This record gives sequence, C-alpha cells and structure tokens, in this order.
Amino acid sequence: MQFQLTSEFIEHIEQLISKKDGKALRALLNDLHFADVAELLEELSFDEATYLINLLESRITSEALMELDDDVREKILDRLSPNQIARELLEMDTDDAADIVAELDDEMQQRVIDTIGDDELAADIVELLKYDEDTAGALMAKELVQVKETWTVAGCVREMRRQAKNVTRVHSIYVTDKEGKLKGRLSLKDLLTASEKTHISEVYIPKVDYVTVHTDNEEVARIMQKYDLEAIPVVNEEGILMGRITIDDIVDFIKDEAEKDYQLAAGISQDVEADDSILRLTKARLPWLVLGLFGGLGSVYIMQGFDEALSRFPILFFFTPLIAAMAGNVGVQSSAIIVQGLANDNVKGSLFHRLLKEVGLALINGIALALLVMIFGFLVGQNHLVSITIAVSMLSVIIVAALVGTFVPIILNKRGIDPAIATGPFITTSNDIFGIFLFFYISKIILGF
Amino acid sequence: MQFQLTSEFIEHIEQLISKKDGKALRALLNDLHFADVAELLEELSFDEATYLINLLESRITSEALMELDDDVREKILDRLSPNQIARELLEMDTDDAADIVAELDDEMQQRVIDTIGDDELAADIVELLKYDEDTAGALMAKELVQVKETWTVAGCVREMRRQAKNVTRVHSIYVTDKEGKLKGRLSLKDLLTASEKTHISEVYIPKVDYVTVHTDNEEVARIMQKYDLEAIPVVNEEGILMGRITIDDIVDFIKDEAEKDYQLAAGISQDVEADDSILRLTKARLPWLVLGLFGGLGSVYIMQGFDEALSRFPILFFFTPLIAAMAGNVGVQSSAIIVQGLANDNVKGSLFHRLLKEVGLALINGIALALLVMIFGFLVGQNHLVSITIAVSMLSVIIVAALVGTFVPIILNKRGIDPAIATGPFITTSNDIFGIFLFFYISKIILGF
Repeated sequence: MQFQLTSEFIEHIEQLISKKDGKALRALLNDLHFADVAELLEELSFDEATYLINLLESRITSEALMELDDDVREKILDRLSPNQIARELLEMDTDDAADIVAELDDEMQQRVIDTIGDDELAADIVELLKYDEDTAGALMAKELVQVKETWTVAGCVREMRRQAKNVTRVHSIYVTDKEGKLKGRLSLKDLLTASEKTHISEVYIPKVDYVTVHTDNEEVARIMQKYDLEAIPVVNEEGILMGRITIDDIVDFIKDEAEKDYQLAAGISQDVEADDSILRLTKARLPWLVLGLFGGLGSVYIMQGFDEALSRFPILFFFTPLIAAMAGNVGVQSSAIIVQGLANDNVKGSLFHRLLKEVGLALINGIALALLVMIFGFLVGQNHLVSITIAVSMLSVIIVAALVGTFVPIILNKRGIDPAIATGPFITTSNDIFGIFLFFYISKIILGF
Repeated sequence: MQFQLTSEFIEHIEQLISKKDGKALRALLNDLHFADVAELLEELSFDEATYLINLLESRITSEALMELDDDVREKILDRLSPNQIARELLEMDTDDAADIVAELDDEMQQRVIDTIGDDELAADIVELLKYDEDTAGALMAKELVQVKETWTVAGCVREMRRQAKNVTRVHSIYVTDKEGKLKGRLSLKDLLTASEKTHISEVYIPKVDYVTVHTDNEEVARIMQKYDLEAIPVVNEEGILMGRITIDDIVDFIKDEAEKDYQLAAGISQDVEADDSILRLTKARLPWLVLGLFGGLGSVYIMQGFDEALSRFPILFFFTPLIAAMAGNVGVQSSAIIVQGLANDNVKGSLFHRLLKEVGLALINGIALALLVMIFGFLVGQNHLVSITIAVSMLSVIIVAALVGTFVPIILNKRGIDPAIATGPFITTSNDIFGIFLFFYISKIILGF
C-alpha cells in the first residue's frame, strides 16, 4: 500500500523531465499522494521541481508545496511567476495560502494578491497576514461550516452542503447569532439524529472552547491538548467567529517545539537538520562551543590558582574531569526534569519543598557515588585522606549542581525566558567551572596545601 | 472561559467531601470539563478522589480517569470494586476501556470483564487486549461508522444515525464489502452533496490509507503525520476492517516519544516527572551517573599513565576539563542532529558523504576554536609549543568526537537499538575518555615528555 521512492523511479522521472514528456509524467504522478510528490520534489533539482509544479494538477502540487522543507520551497517559489503562484494558492486552505504569501518579499506579495482573481481568498489572505506570527490569528484558517441559531435542521443541512464545497474536512459545525458571534457548536451526531424541522437553537451545544485571534500558539496547543480538541474556533475581540485551528497544525507545532527543546539541550541554537549546509550547521553549533571553550579556559584559570597542590597532591588534577563530568551530568538531569515539568505545567508546590526534594535526591545519588569513589581509592591503594577529600567534594559538587540545574530554569521561566536554553551547554559549562572551584577549595581546606 | 483551579476551590471541595455533601459536589462538578475534573482529582488524596469518582456522573469521571497520571490512576483503581470499574468502562471508547483493563492484575481483569454486562463491549475489550502493546491493534478503537458499498446514500444516512450513537466523533465513514473487507472511505462532503438514491459504490473514494493490527505504533504515527490523516482504519491479515486510530492518540504518542528522547539525552532512563518520588527519580538518574563516574575513573587511569608530564608540563592537566568538555559538547551536538534526522527519516545520502560533511564541519568549528586557544595562549604568555600542542590536540579531539557522535547513533539504529540512547551521558562519557587519551598522546608526541 505504501509508496516507496526508489532511486530508479527518481532517475526515470528525471529522464522524462529532460525529454519534457509531460504526458508520461502526468500519467505517473497525478495519482500519487501529495506527500509522496513532495518527497520526490525534494530529490530533484530546483529547476526540475519547478517544472513539475507547473506541469501537474494544482490540487496535488499545492499540498506538496506545503510539505516541502522551507528552504526547498523558497527556491521553487523564486522560480515561479506571480500567476503560477496564484494558481497554487487557489487550491490551498486559507491558512496555507497565507503562509506561502508571507514567505514572499513585499513586492511579490502584492503582485500575487493582485493576480489571484478570487476576491474572497485575496481578502482572507490579506486579513490573515495582519496577525502576529505566533498567535492563533496567524495559525487559523477561514474555512469552516457556520450555521445560524435561528435555522432549522433542514435549512442547516442545505446550507452545509453549499459551504462544505469549500471545506476539505468538516471538523465541527459552529453556531453563531445574526451578527456572527460564536454561540456554540453542533455535533454531527445531533444533526443526524434530530428531526428536520427542529431549530438549531434547540439542539446546539452552548459550551464551546475557543481562543481569540491574539491567543499565543503555545496556549492554543495547551488548550487543544488538555481538552482533546480536534478543532477550535477563533473569535475576535467582539466574539465574532473569525476562523478555526485544526489539530494537524498543532501536531506540527508540538513537534517543532519538542525538536527545538531537544536541540537546545544538545547545544544547537537554530532549527537545523542533518542535511543543512555546513555554514548553517556551523552557525547553529559554533556559538555554544565557544561558550564551552571560555568555560574551559575559566577552569584553567581556577586550577592555576591552586597550583601549589601540584607538587603534593597531583592526583587531584587527575580527578578534575570526573568532578566536571559529575557536575555537568547532574545539572543536565535536574534541569531537563524541570524544563519538561514547566512545559507540561506540573511543577507544583512551593520552592522550599522543591529545594528539600532536590537536596534529598542529590544526597542519595551523591552518597552512593561517593562510596564508589572511596571503594575505588581503597582498591588502588590511594591515600585515605585524599579519597575522603574527593568523596566529600564530589558530594558537595553534586548538591550544588542539582540546585543550579533546578533553579536556573525556574528563574529563567519566571523572567519570561525559554527555560529550555538552560539544559545543555549553559548548565554544563557553568557547573564545570563551579564544580572545579568547589573541588579545589574543599580539597585545600581538608588537605591544607 | 478557562477554568482555573485555585487552592480555595480545592479546599472547598475537600470540606464538602469530608462532610459527604454529595449534592453540593455534584452541583459544583458535574458541569466541569473532564480535563478540569482530572486536574482536581490529582490535587486530592486518593480516598477523596475515589469518593468523587463514585459520586459524579461516569460520563465525566470515565474521561477524567483517562487523563490522570498513571500512578494516580493505579491508586484509585485499587480502591474501586469490579462493579464500579465496569460502570466507568461503559462510558469509555473501547480503546480507553481496554487500556484501563490492561492496567489491572489478571484476577481483577476477569472479574471486571465478567461484570460489565455489555457483551459487545466485553468482547471488544478481550479482543483489544490480545494485541501487542506497541502495535496498531492495541492503539485502535472499535468505534467507527461503517457502511456497505451496496447501500444507497439514503440508507447510508439512516444506518449512520444508528451507528453514530456509539461514536463520540465521526472522523470518516468507511466503506466495506459484504465480508467486511475495507474498500474505501466516504467523505462527509460527498454524502451531503450526493442525491439520496445514489449507490455508495458510485461515490466512495477507493484510495484509502490503512494499517494492519500488527503495524508498529511508530509507523502508524509516521504515516498519519506524513499524509496529514486525522484517523486511519486498521484491518486484519484478511483485509477485514477491525477498528480505527485517531490523531489524538497519536498526539499523545508523539509527545511521549519526544519526551523520552529528551530525557535520554539528559541521562534519565525512565519516564519520570518532577513530582515523582525520590526513589523513582533516583532509579532513573543514578545508573547514568555511575556510568559517568566510571568514565571519570577511566580518565584518572589514563592520566596516571602520562604522569611524567606533571613535572615538565603541568599546564596540560589544567586543560583536561576543557578538552573533555569540547569532546562532550561536539559529540552531543552531532548525535542530536543524527537522532532527529533518523526520527524524521531525512538522513539521506551515502555514509561516505556524511563522513566528509562531518569532518568538514568539525574542521571549521575546530579551527575556529583552536585559533581562540592560540590567542588565549599568546595573551597569557604561554609557551608557544604548548599552545600549538593544545590547539592541535583539541582540533583532533573535535574531529574524532564528531565522528563518534555521528556514527554511533547510525550504527545503533542499524542494529535496531533506539539511537536516542546515544545522545547524552553515553556519548559524553566515551568522548571524555577518548578525548583525554588523544590529548595526552598527541601532547607526548609533540612535546616529547
């Protein structure tokens, strides 16, 4: 059942394109699913892909365009005329059409909108472009099935037939008053089971979740997930129904957010993929490595301050990578749990309670690890006082690292900064420096060098 | 519009529960959304929560039960009788009901199934329990609207009315032949716009994506995301329609997978939350810390092998945390990109091409960082040869770390092991040891100690 994109198939398509055999290409590709066409387009050169976009039915290519990687789509859009772009837009849902137009430069935007021909679509696009990028207004589509509370079920079905032509999937039927204010929703089930003459006002469900055009995307995702919604209506400040957001847009949003957090935790600050250019990957990665480098140089500086230990306790310097690794690992663990807890809104209870718990957790882990270090010291015949020094410092470092890892994300979050930035190189680096300083400081006190 | 769970509200509810004022509680809570009830239940004691589950309408509590944290639900189910559990199951979709039953012990499972009363639901649950946990069979629900290809549109609407009563949300109407084999699907739009006497066979869409009961969850998620599906039918080996999976189950699955990857990258090996018990958190965290500890002890051992450098080039030992941090950071970056690429299926091209790219990337980053180290050495008046040694070793360590970070996940993936395990402590620790060894080995060659 599943289409498999083989290299023979790609080669075959490329040959047909070079021969400009439109008929054979249409026969081969017009029956494919748009997601498969999108996969194919990503394997072709930009010129070949553009040729196919113009050749195949817009019904397929418009959806395929939306599936493409941003940078591939940008290159293809550059090669299309305003007319050709407008033809694709006519087949898209309004939210997708607006996203495409938003990717064009100002001059091209105007030219495309002028050539669309469909005044309603053009007006919808212009409206959607007005909203801030991260709000429900920019995420919503204008397509929806809307009925008035005063209609009968029969009239409603008639009107739905008319409206359904413009809506790819009917998620919910929204009920409004004369002015277009959202009153509630109608379940398909009720519509199917109610008698024809019943008035909508008698069967509709007045409780309906909604967001406003200014609601933040993150909040929309949270509400739709919490209440298991597949679509949510969007209203303006006056409560007038403006559009709807469907779960597939939210799925993409959730995935993007999760990937962003994952990358931040790994020290990658831009949204990049394995196939991006070396330059783009370097831009995303190098800054964090430089941060790590400065952290490392900071450690060098700290250790130089304790160099009197070199002659008497050189073993301490063999243990610094271990101390740094422990501080880093514990910090990353603590911050990852808090970052996820903050994202899922389940970090509850007072800060003091959290403090106690983290210290308790660090004590248990730290004592277990300290014992292992002592055992190691005993097995290799290490000076007992040195073993105790290392164990005690490691325990202290683990407690401090856990506290830093826990409270840095909480503080960042309180100040409106994405706490995800705290997991990863930022915590690792600061904990490295902190841990090494603490290690030598405690060693100096115990061993008295 | 949004319900806010305040501590006053919780206190008020607790007082009403202690007074056993069922009437007031029902009046307050029966109109709440189930997701809000679930939030409330999580704030109460298990006994209080159980009291509410038995008091409120099963329509609400059954859905609220599904929203609860696994461990909270377990505690509440322990306090319910087979009869009380069965009452909740009657209000659930089959997939949820089967999930709940699966959480009970064998004896309780049998007792609950025996007391359900609804034979069809009992049979559905028994069937769903048979499938492997990670397959489409275990994820699907039996509720769906199914019509035969031989029916007319009018007959179809009549039948849909009947079936719709058991289906909370109509996602798609599936068309089958006499034997129940999946033939295609019917769009609501076509049903609304076709004349009453038309036969279904003339209007249905024969192309329909589907999975079998044995398809892996991950594959189901991939297909539904790729083809933007909101529901997908599930068939058995003979092509008979068995159930359907909806996007909301996939949203949960995607989120869980992303969280698991994130936690693995941070060195947390079980699914834990900030509010879990210290014991559970320790179990998830300590093993990785022990791994890090052994790694650190490995570094101690390596450095002892190069202790002749202590007297002549002690500065090298100040730089080990920096080298280890660089190796760790670069490795985590490389593996995170590959792990995400593998998950999204966009790691393309030959291994050799990937090798060249990673080396190129590592060279650019490495040279930039090596220059910074040289500048630092110059500024603090460090011996030039030592600066060069550190720069050259760091560059080599970065290249090796990038290769390890890239190819370890690829190799794990090829062997069927979750590559996500490679980002985080595993890579950091092995790169630490490797990096430190390489650093001292190269230093020994250049400086000749």
